[in-house]
Amino acid sequence: MLILGLDPSLSCTGWGLVRAEGSRIAHVAHGEVRTDAGAPMAQRLHHLHDAIRAVIAAHAPDRAAAEEVFLNKNPQSTLKLAQARGAVLAACAAGGLTVNEHAARLVKKSVVGIGAADKLQVQAMLKVLLPGVAIAGADAADALAVAIADAHLAGAQREKP
Amino acid sequence: MLILGLDPSLSCTGWGLVRAEGSRIAHVAHGEVRTDAGAPMAQRLHHLHDAIRAVIAAHAPDRAAAEEVFLNKNPQSTLKLAQARGAVLAACAAGGLTVNEHAARLVKKSVVGIGAADKLQVQAMLKVLLPGVAIAGADAADALAVAIADAHLAGAQREKP
Repeated sequence: MLILGLDPSLSCTGWGLVRAEGSRIAHVAHGEVRTDAGAPMAQRLHHLHDAIRAVIAAHAPDRAAAEEVFLNKNPQSTLKLAQARGAVLAACAAGGLTVNEHAARLVKKSVVGIGAADKLQVQAMLKVLLPGVAIAGADAADALAVAIADAHLAGAQREKP
Repeated sequence: MLILGLDPSLSCTGWGLVRAEGSRIAHVAHGEVRTDAGAPMAQRLHHLHDAIRAVIAAHAPDRAAAEEVFLNKNPQSTLKLAQARGAVLAACAAGGLTVNEHAARLVKKSVVGIGAADKLQVQAMLKVLLPGVAIAGADAADALAVAIADAHLAGAQREKP
Protein backbone atom coordinates (compact mmCIF):
# COMPACT_ATOMS: atom_id res chain seq x y z
CA MET A 1 0.00 0.00 0.00
CA LEU A 2 1.59 3.25 -1.17
CA ILE A 3 0.38 6.27 0.82
CA LEU A 4 0.82 9.92 -0.17
CA GLY A 5 0.91 12.26 2.84
CA LEU A 6 0.29 15.93 2.18
CA ASP A 7 0.90 19.11 4.15
CA PRO A 8 -0.72 21.80 2.00
CA SER A 9 0.15 25.46 2.31
CA LEU A 10 0.30 28.28 -0.19
CA SER A 11 3.99 29.10 0.16
CA CYS A 12 5.26 25.52 0.51
CA THR A 13 3.29 22.27 0.25
CA GLY A 14 5.05 19.20 1.60
CA TRP A 15 4.47 15.69 0.26
CA GLY A 16 5.76 12.33 1.39
CA LEU A 17 5.28 8.80 0.10
CA VAL A 18 5.60 5.74 2.31
CA ARG A 19 4.98 2.07 1.56
CA ALA A 20 3.08 0.26 4.32
CA GLU A 21 3.04 -3.53 4.48
CA GLY A 22 1.39 -4.79 7.64
CA SER A 23 3.11 -2.89 10.43
CA ARG A 24 6.26 -2.22 8.33
CA ILE A 25 6.69 1.22 6.87
CA ALA A 26 9.32 2.27 4.32
CA HIS A 27 10.18 5.65 2.86
CA VAL A 28 9.66 5.95 -0.91
CA ALA A 29 10.06 9.64 -1.76
CA HIS A 30 9.28 13.11 -0.49
CA GLY A 31 9.53 16.72 -1.51
CA GLU A 32 8.30 20.27 -1.17
CA VAL A 33 6.50 22.41 -3.72
CA ARG A 34 7.20 26.12 -3.31
CA THR A 35 5.29 28.93 -4.96
CA ASP A 36 6.49 32.42 -5.85
CA ALA A 37 5.11 34.86 -3.26
CA GLY A 38 5.11 37.57 -5.93
CA ALA A 39 2.96 35.59 -8.38
CA PRO A 40 -0.83 36.03 -8.61
CA MET A 41 -2.89 33.80 -6.29
CA ALA A 42 -4.49 31.80 -9.14
CA GLN A 43 -1.05 31.06 -10.60
CA ARG A 44 0.30 29.86 -7.25
CA LEU A 45 -2.71 27.60 -6.74
CA HIS A 46 -2.33 26.19 -10.24
CA HIS A 47 1.35 25.47 -9.58
CA LEU A 48 0.46 23.50 -6.43
CA HIS A 49 -2.29 21.60 -8.24
CA ASP A 50 -0.05 20.77 -11.18
CA ALA A 51 2.91 19.70 -9.06
CA ILE A 52 0.84 17.35 -6.90
CA ARG A 53 -0.78 15.86 -10.01
CA ALA A 54 2.75 15.23 -11.33
CA VAL A 55 3.76 13.49 -8.07
CA ILE A 56 0.67 11.27 -8.32
CA ALA A 57 1.31 10.50 -11.99
CA ALA A 58 4.96 9.62 -11.26
CA HIS A 59 4.36 7.37 -8.24
CA ALA A 60 0.77 6.10 -8.54
CA PRO A 61 -0.03 6.01 -4.81
CA ASP A 62 -3.03 4.00 -3.57
CA ARG A 63 -4.45 6.72 -1.38
CA ALA A 64 -3.66 10.11 0.13
CA ALA A 65 -3.85 11.57 3.62
CA ALA A 66 -3.75 15.06 5.10
CA GLU A 67 -4.24 16.62 8.49
CA GLU A 68 -7.66 18.07 9.13
CA VAL A 69 -7.52 21.77 8.45
CA PHE A 70 -7.02 23.94 11.49
CA LEU A 71 -8.22 27.47 12.05
CA ASN A 72 -5.33 29.88 12.27
CA LYS A 73 -5.71 32.83 14.64
CA ASN A 74 -5.14 35.08 11.64
CA PRO A 75 -8.18 34.74 9.32
CA GLN A 76 -6.13 35.78 6.27
CA SER A 77 -3.70 32.93 6.97
CA THR A 78 -6.61 30.51 7.24
CA LEU A 79 -7.93 31.72 3.88
CA LYS A 80 -4.57 31.24 2.16
CA LEU A 81 -4.13 27.81 3.71
CA ALA A 82 -7.64 26.70 2.78
CA GLN A 83 -7.31 27.86 -0.82
CA ALA A 84 -4.02 25.96 -1.16
CA ARG A 85 -5.67 22.93 0.38
CA GLY A 86 -8.52 23.19 -2.12
CA ALA A 87 -6.12 23.12 -5.06
CA VAL A 88 -4.15 20.20 -3.57
CA LEU A 89 -7.17 18.05 -2.65
CA ALA A 90 -8.67 18.62 -6.10
CA ALA A 91 -5.40 17.30 -7.56
CA CYS A 92 -5.71 14.13 -5.46
CA ALA A 93 -9.24 13.43 -6.68
CA ALA A 94 -8.15 14.25 -10.24
CA GLY A 95 -5.55 11.51 -9.81
CA GLY A 96 -8.22 9.07 -8.59
CA LEU A 97 -7.16 9.12 -4.93
CA THR A 98 -9.32 9.23 -1.85
CA VAL A 99 -7.96 11.53 0.85
CA ASN A 100 -8.15 10.44 4.49
CA GLU A 101 -8.22 13.36 6.90
CA HIS A 102 -6.77 12.96 10.38
CA ALA A 103 -6.82 15.32 13.35
CA ALA A 104 -3.36 16.82 14.05
CA ARG A 105 -3.35 15.33 17.53
CA LEU A 106 -4.02 11.84 16.18
CA VAL A 107 -1.13 12.20 13.73
CA LYS A 108 1.23 13.21 16.54
CA LYS A 109 -0.06 10.49 18.83
CA SER A 110 0.37 7.94 16.08
CA VAL A 111 3.94 8.97 15.21
CA VAL A 112 5.37 10.08 18.57
CA GLY A 113 3.02 8.41 21.04
CA ILE A 114 1.67 11.65 22.49
CA GLY A 115 -0.90 13.96 20.90
CA ALA A 116 0.74 17.13 22.22
CA ALA A 117 4.15 16.39 20.65
CA ASP A 118 5.93 19.36 19.10
CA LYS A 119 7.46 19.58 15.62
CA LEU A 120 10.96 18.67 16.85
CA GLN A 121 9.66 15.53 18.56
CA VAL A 122 7.87 14.52 15.35
CA GLN A 123 11.03 15.11 13.32
CA ALA A 124 13.16 13.14 15.79
CA MET A 125 10.72 10.22 15.62
CA LEU A 126 10.75 10.31 11.80
CA LYS A 127 14.52 9.71 11.95
CA VAL A 128 13.82 6.54 13.94
CA LEU A 129 10.91 5.38 11.78
CA LEU A 130 12.57 6.19 8.44
CA PRO A 131 16.27 5.54 9.17
CA GLY A 132 18.81 7.03 6.77
CA VAL A 133 16.35 9.43 5.14
CA ALA A 134 17.53 13.06 4.93
CA ILE A 135 14.24 14.92 4.98
CA ALA A 136 14.16 18.03 2.79
CA GLY A 137 12.35 20.34 5.22
CA ALA A 138 9.69 20.81 7.87
CA ASP A 139 6.77 20.64 5.43
CA ALA A 140 7.99 17.39 3.89
CA ALA A 141 8.47 16.03 7.43
CA ASP A 142 4.86 16.88 8.31
CA ALA A 143 3.70 15.21 5.11
CA LEU A 144 5.65 12.03 5.89
CA ALA A 145 4.22 12.06 9.43
CA VAL A 146 0.65 12.15 8.17
CA ALA A 147 1.40 9.34 5.70
CA ILE A 148 2.81 7.18 8.51
CA ALA A 149 -0.12 8.04 10.77
CA ASP A 150 -2.52 7.09 7.98
CA ALA A 151 -0.82 3.70 7.66
CA HIS A 152 -1.20 3.12 11.41
CA LEU A 153 -4.72 4.47 11.69
CA ALA A 154 -6.11 2.68 8.64
CA GLY A 155 -4.40 -0.54 9.82
CA ALA A 156 -5.95 -0.14 13.26
CA GLN A 157 -9.38 0.37 11.70
CA ARG A 158 -9.04 -2.81 9.64
CA GLU A 159 -8.26 -4.75 12.83
CA LYS A 160 -11.46 -3.62 14.54
CA PRO A 161 -13.96 -6.48 14.88
CA MET B 1 -13.04 41.22 -24.55
CA LEU B 2 -14.69 38.07 -23.15
CA ILE B 3 -14.82 38.10 -19.34
CA LEU B 4 -15.56 35.10 -17.12
CA GLY B 5 -17.13 36.06 -13.80
CA LEU B 6 -16.98 33.49 -11.02
CA ASP B 7 -18.81 33.07 -7.72
CA PRO B 8 -17.07 30.10 -6.13
CA SER B 9 -18.67 28.02 -3.40
CA LEU B 10 -18.43 24.35 -2.50
CA SER B 11 -22.09 23.47 -2.98
CA CYS B 12 -22.72 25.62 -6.05
CA THR B 13 -20.24 27.70 -8.05
CA GLY B 14 -21.76 30.24 -10.42
CA TRP B 15 -20.11 31.36 -13.64
CA GLY B 16 -21.08 33.99 -16.16
CA LEU B 17 -19.54 35.17 -19.44
CA VAL B 18 -20.03 38.64 -20.84
CA ARG B 19 -18.53 40.32 -23.88
CA ALA B 20 -17.42 43.89 -23.25
CA GLU B 21 -16.76 46.25 -26.15
CA GLY B 22 -16.11 49.78 -24.99
CA SER B 23 -19.03 50.55 -22.68
CA ARG B 24 -21.30 47.95 -24.30
CA ILE B 25 -21.81 44.67 -22.46
CA ALA B 26 -23.53 41.59 -23.85
CA HIS B 27 -24.42 38.30 -22.25
CA VAL B 28 -22.68 35.24 -23.72
CA ALA B 29 -23.43 32.32 -21.40
CA HIS B 30 -23.79 31.42 -17.75
CA GLY B 31 -24.34 28.44 -15.51
CA GLU B 32 -23.97 26.85 -12.10
CA VAL B 33 -21.80 23.90 -11.07
CA ARG B 34 -23.29 21.91 -8.22
CA THR B 35 -21.47 19.30 -6.16
CA ASP B 36 -22.89 16.33 -4.28
CA ALA B 37 -22.98 17.19 -0.56
CA GLY B 38 -22.55 13.47 0.20
CA ALA B 39 -19.36 13.10 -1.84
CA PRO B 40 -15.87 13.36 -0.27
CA MET B 41 -14.39 16.87 -0.13
CA ALA B 42 -11.55 16.11 -2.60
CA GLN B 43 -14.06 14.75 -5.12
CA ARG B 44 -16.26 17.85 -4.83
CA LEU B 45 -13.25 20.15 -5.30
CA HIS B 46 -12.12 18.15 -8.33
CA HIS B 47 -15.60 18.43 -9.84
CA LEU B 48 -15.52 22.24 -9.49
CA HIS B 49 -12.01 22.42 -10.95
CA ASP B 50 -12.90 20.17 -13.87
CA ALA B 51 -16.16 21.96 -14.67
CA ILE B 52 -14.58 25.42 -14.70
CA ARG B 53 -11.73 24.14 -16.88
CA ALA B 54 -14.40 22.83 -19.28
CA VAL B 55 -16.14 26.24 -19.36
CA ILE B 56 -12.80 27.91 -20.14
CA ALA B 57 -11.98 25.37 -22.84
CA ALA B 58 -15.41 25.80 -24.44
CA HIS B 59 -15.52 29.62 -24.45
CA ALA B 60 -11.87 30.76 -24.36
CA PRO B 61 -12.43 33.91 -22.26
CA ASP B 62 -9.73 36.59 -22.16
CA ARG B 63 -9.69 36.99 -18.41
CA ALA B 64 -11.56 36.03 -15.24
CA ALA B 65 -12.89 37.95 -12.26
CA ALA B 66 -14.14 37.05 -8.79
CA GLU B 67 -15.16 38.89 -5.68
CA GLU B 68 -12.51 39.13 -3.00
CA VAL B 69 -13.09 36.39 -0.49
CA PHE B 70 -15.02 37.45 2.58
CA LEU B 71 -14.76 36.00 6.09
CA ASN B 72 -17.94 34.23 7.07
CA LYS B 73 -18.98 34.42 10.72
CA ASN B 74 -18.84 30.63 10.77
CA PRO B 75 -15.17 29.57 10.38
CA GLN B 76 -16.17 26.18 8.93
CA SER B 77 -18.13 27.96 6.19
CA THR B 78 -15.11 30.14 5.45
CA LEU B 79 -12.94 27.02 5.16
CA LYS B 80 -15.33 25.35 2.73
CA LEU B 81 -15.64 28.50 0.67
CA ALA B 82 -11.89 29.07 0.55
CA GLN B 83 -11.15 25.49 -0.48
CA ALA B 84 -13.71 25.74 -3.30
CA ARG B 85 -12.18 29.05 -4.33
CA GLY B 86 -8.73 27.44 -4.39
CA ALA B 87 -9.89 24.72 -6.79
CA VAL B 88 -11.68 27.27 -9.02
CA LEU B 89 -8.83 29.81 -9.17
CA ALA B 90 -6.35 27.02 -9.96
CA ALA B 91 -8.61 26.06 -12.88
CA CYS B 92 -8.47 29.64 -14.20
CA ALA B 93 -4.68 29.73 -14.14
CA ALA B 94 -4.57 26.25 -15.68
CA GLY B 95 -6.63 27.73 -18.52
CA GLY B 96 -4.15 30.59 -18.90
CA LEU B 97 -6.41 33.25 -17.36
CA THR B 98 -5.50 36.01 -14.96
CA VAL B 99 -8.12 36.55 -12.25
CA ASN B 100 -9.02 40.08 -11.20
CA GLU B 101 -10.34 40.27 -7.65
CA HIS B 102 -12.82 42.99 -6.70
CA ALA B 103 -14.26 43.93 -3.33
CA ALA B 104 -17.95 42.98 -3.02
CA ARG B 105 -18.92 46.60 -2.43
CA LEU B 106 -17.17 47.71 -5.61
CA VAL B 107 -19.03 45.05 -7.60
CA LYS B 108 -22.38 46.24 -6.20
CA LYS B 109 -21.50 49.86 -6.72
CA SER B 110 -20.44 49.13 -10.28
CA VAL B 111 -23.62 47.19 -11.16
CA VAL B 112 -26.31 48.91 -9.08
CA GLY B 113 -24.70 52.26 -8.31
CA ILE B 114 -24.58 51.75 -4.55
CA GLY B 115 -22.09 49.60 -2.65
CA ALA B 116 -24.63 48.47 -0.06
CA ALA B 117 -27.08 47.05 -2.63
CA ASP B 118 -28.73 43.75 -1.69
CA LYS B 119 -28.95 40.61 -3.85
CA LEU B 120 -32.41 41.47 -5.17
CA GLN B 121 -31.25 44.91 -6.30
CA VAL B 122 -28.30 43.31 -8.10
CA GLN B 123 -30.59 40.80 -9.80
CA ALA B 124 -33.06 43.52 -10.83
CA MET B 125 -30.23 45.54 -12.36
CA LEU B 126 -28.93 42.48 -14.22
CA LYS B 127 -32.34 42.27 -15.95
CA VAL B 128 -31.81 45.81 -17.18
CA LEU B 129 -28.15 45.33 -18.17
CA LEU B 130 -28.67 41.93 -19.82
CA PRO B 131 -32.20 42.21 -21.24
CA GLY B 132 -33.98 38.98 -22.19
CA VAL B 133 -31.59 36.73 -20.26
CA ALA B 134 -33.25 34.21 -17.92
CA ILE B 135 -30.59 33.75 -15.27
CA ALA B 136 -30.31 30.21 -13.91
CA GLY B 137 -29.93 31.10 -10.24
CA ALA B 138 -28.51 33.40 -7.59
CA ASP B 139 -24.93 32.10 -7.94
CA ALA B 140 -24.91 32.58 -11.70
CA ALA B 141 -26.35 36.08 -11.14
CA ASP B 142 -23.50 36.94 -8.76
CA ALA B 143 -21.00 35.62 -11.30
CA LEU B 144 -22.49 37.75 -14.10
CA ALA B 145 -22.44 40.77 -11.77
CA VAL B 146 -18.71 40.37 -11.08
CA ALA B 147 -18.01 39.95 -14.82
CA ILE B 148 -19.91 43.18 -15.58
CA ALA B 149 -18.16 44.98 -12.73
CA ASP B 150 -14.80 43.78 -14.05
CA ALA B 151 -15.64 45.21 -17.49
CA HIS B 152 -16.50 48.57 -15.90
CA LEU B 153 -13.60 48.65 -13.47
CA ALA B 154 -10.93 47.56 -15.95
CA GLY B 155 -12.34 50.04 -18.49
CA ALA B 156 -12.19 52.82 -15.90
CA GLN B 157 -8.59 51.91 -15.09
CA ARG B 158 -7.62 52.09 -18.78
CA GLU B 159 -9.11 55.58 -18.99
CA LYS B 160 -6.95 56.88 -16.16
CA PRO B 161 -4.25 59.23 -17.43
